[in-house]
Amino acid sequence: MHDPALHRLDPEAAARLTALIDRIAPLDGSLLTRAAAHHDRLTKPRGSLGRIETIGAQRCAIAGQVPPPVPEQPAIAVFAGDHGVLAQGVSPWPQEVTAQMVGTFCAGGAAINALARRVGATLTVVDVGVATALADHPMLRRHNIRLGTADLAVGPAMTLDEAVAALLVGATVAAELVAAGADLLVGGDMGIGNTTPSAAVIGALTRRPASAVTGRGTGVDDDMLRHKQDIVAVALARVATAAAMTTAEGESTQSPLTVLAEVGGLEIAALAGFLLGGAAAGVPVLVDGVITLAGATVAAALCPAVRERLVAAHRSSEPGASVALAWLGLDPLIDLGLRLGEGSGAALAVPLVQAAAAVMAEMATFDAAGVTDKAG
Amino acid sequence: MHDPALHRLDPEAAARLTALIDRIAPLDGSLLTRAAAHHDRLTKPRGSLGRIETIGAQRCAIAGQVPPPVPEQPAIAVFAGDHGVLAQGVSPWPQEVTAQMVGTFCAGGAAINALARRVGATLTVVDVGVATALADHPMLRRHNIRLGTADLAVGPAMTLDEAVAALLVGATVAAELVAAGADLLVGGDMGIGNTTPSAAVIGALTRRPASAVTGRGTGVDDDMLRHKQDIVAVALARVATAAAMTTAEGESTQSPLTVLAEVGGLEIAALAGFLLGGAAAGVPVLVDGVITLAGATVAAALCPAVRERLVAAHRSSEPGASVALAWLGLDPLIDLGLRLGEGSGAALAVPLVQAAAAVMAEMATFDAAGVTDKAG
Repeated sequence: MHDPALHRLDPEAAARLTALIDRIAPLDGSLLTRAAAHHDRLTKPRGSLGRIETIGAQRCAIAGQVPPPVPEQPAIAVFAGDHGVLAQGVSPWPQEVTAQMVGTFCAGGAAINALARRVGATLTVVDVGVATALADHPMLRRHNIRLGTADLAVGPAMTLDEAVAALLVGATVAAELVAAGADLLVGGDMGIGNTTPSAAVIGALTRRPASAVTGRGTGVDDDMLRHKQDIVAVALARVATAAAMTTAEGESTQSPLTVLAEVGGLEIAALAGFLLGGAAAGVPVLVDGVITLAGATVAAALCPAVRERLVAAHRSSEPGASVALAWLGLDPLIDLGLRLGEGSGAALAVPLVQAAAAVMAEMATFDAAGVTDKAG
Repeated sequence: MHDPALHRLDPEAAARLTALIDRIAPLDGSLLTRAAAHHDRLTKPRGSLGRIETIGAQRCAIAGQVPPPVPEQPAIAVFAGDHGVLAQGVSPWPQEVTAQMVGTFCAGGAAINALARRVGATLTVVDVGVATALADHPMLRRHNIRLGTADLAVGPAMTLDEAVAALLVGATVAAELVAAGADLLVGGDMGIGNTTPSAAVIGALTRRPASAVTGRGTGVDDDMLRHKQDIVAVALARVATAAAMTTAEGESTQSPLTVLAEVGGLEIAALAGFLLGGAAAGVPVLVDGVITLAGATVAAALCPAVRERLVAAHRSSEPGASVALAWLGLDPLIDLGLRLGEGSGAALAVPLVQAAAAVMAEMATFDAAGVTDKAG
């Protein structure tokens, strides 16, 4: 689909977004069939590698070959932004922690640094909307669209043009990482307060109430959770009107870009674009927790075909994550009660995606190994 | 506990088994407390790495240091054996496939070979009870106790001395791998028909009926599944009498070693010993699917403290696996519908255990990074 609000955008940005979406085709079903047939010839009971086989087949269809190449150059991009809604008291952390954690990423001391090193991934940090001044660092890319969003509890978080600009930053980063050799992308986030806009985006696009999508984030107490749910409910009520559109054919619909601008965040927008950019570049993209999933719902609302190219890494403990996963039709690989963000859950799942490709590429067939196949 | 059937064993084997069990102490709770305190100082919201934190803390307690060393030398041992119960038609695969798959392991073409290479693990194949002749190979260790078990549907699968001999093979292999530098052990199995003895062992030790523990294994149809359940039910009825013992204090109990000998398998016995041996050597041991879990129930019945040193890798699709996991109090790391064996699920979980240690060893603290901690 093309968003009904496209005509309100800066024309060049609208053209870039349209071109991006148009490059993402549904997966070739014949490759999935060939991948399944290949799996059935390997020296193991049929289907016995469960979802590892599903991931391997998806890898074949994305790469266009059976068996698939094993992704050996994962690249992680962490998008950082601040949130005006923090003024409403939706997080126990102060805003400056966003910039401090960007500094920690650059210094190599955060969880995502340790996890990136484990899987041999490059790590890029992208400022799309941090409110505090950041020191230069080779790992840091500066694409700041604005110094944090406005407070979504009282009005639009950003303009439509800002949302699309942030989205296109994410798409560009994905394209550049792939051009530099990355064959598996991992998206992550940093932004104090960002579980609130994520809940609002997921609630709006999946049409679920605030109570179903709002969680404790990095650790709010009962009172703060109730307050956070109230704020998400107010945001959902506003966006229901603001994003309601009529298509050229006269049908009622919703503008995903308007949802993103009204109640989203700059890093959520960038992650939506990163997922679309990775899909357009023909590499699989691992989806982390609730923030990236909010970006994924925007991406899928704009371009349903992107879903087949995503790999859900883990089931975050945030309720909005499970709502988004169900709506996207994605079944995550791990479920370890993670709620850190930074792309940490997705980084943990990288070896599973590599293993899924490796078994297809390296295992012997029954014939070649001289192993007797199952009777009947 | 010490098994009430110990006095029926060859005295030297009984002494070795007793010494092995006596070397496995409960984990030091103060190390778990120190590990939790360390986690809380790292630059992430408290508890936000979920079960990765639990695994990291366990790693600290096993290693005796906070932060823990990162395990960099995983070693996989696959124990192979054949099963007399195959004569009852409990699997669609012929017995010679056990030996053929041992050949495939040695040739490098099985799933476990690809997965071992991915995680940089050594792979050792141990013949504890294959019925067919095997060619020599540097990767193959010959500790054949007997040429497959007898048919557990009609009588004891093996003698008590054979069961303990196979168990001690597993313990020796674990000790030798650790002596050679391994710091993380993965146990796996190969044995056509071995989900039937695994179901019987798990059913007997957890006192659950055949219907709760018997599954489709590598792919039996509805008729064969019913037949398999009937055979497990007969085995459970027999072992209920055979393994019933009275302790020195006059209490009614069950002999885990008798359960193992009556309805188990040689590779199940070896895996029980491998888990005990790894625990005794002070390294964490990753537990694979239903066959290894059958070994784990035997190990834990003999030595309850071993449970704290095991890491359950995955939830196999076999129902007996979930029964065993619940009885052992273990929560698996991944749930991907795997039912292959060979240690494949455990190999897939190796990077998660390494990551759990790496975040503890490498992340900065709030103080060191200059990051503001959460309010309140």
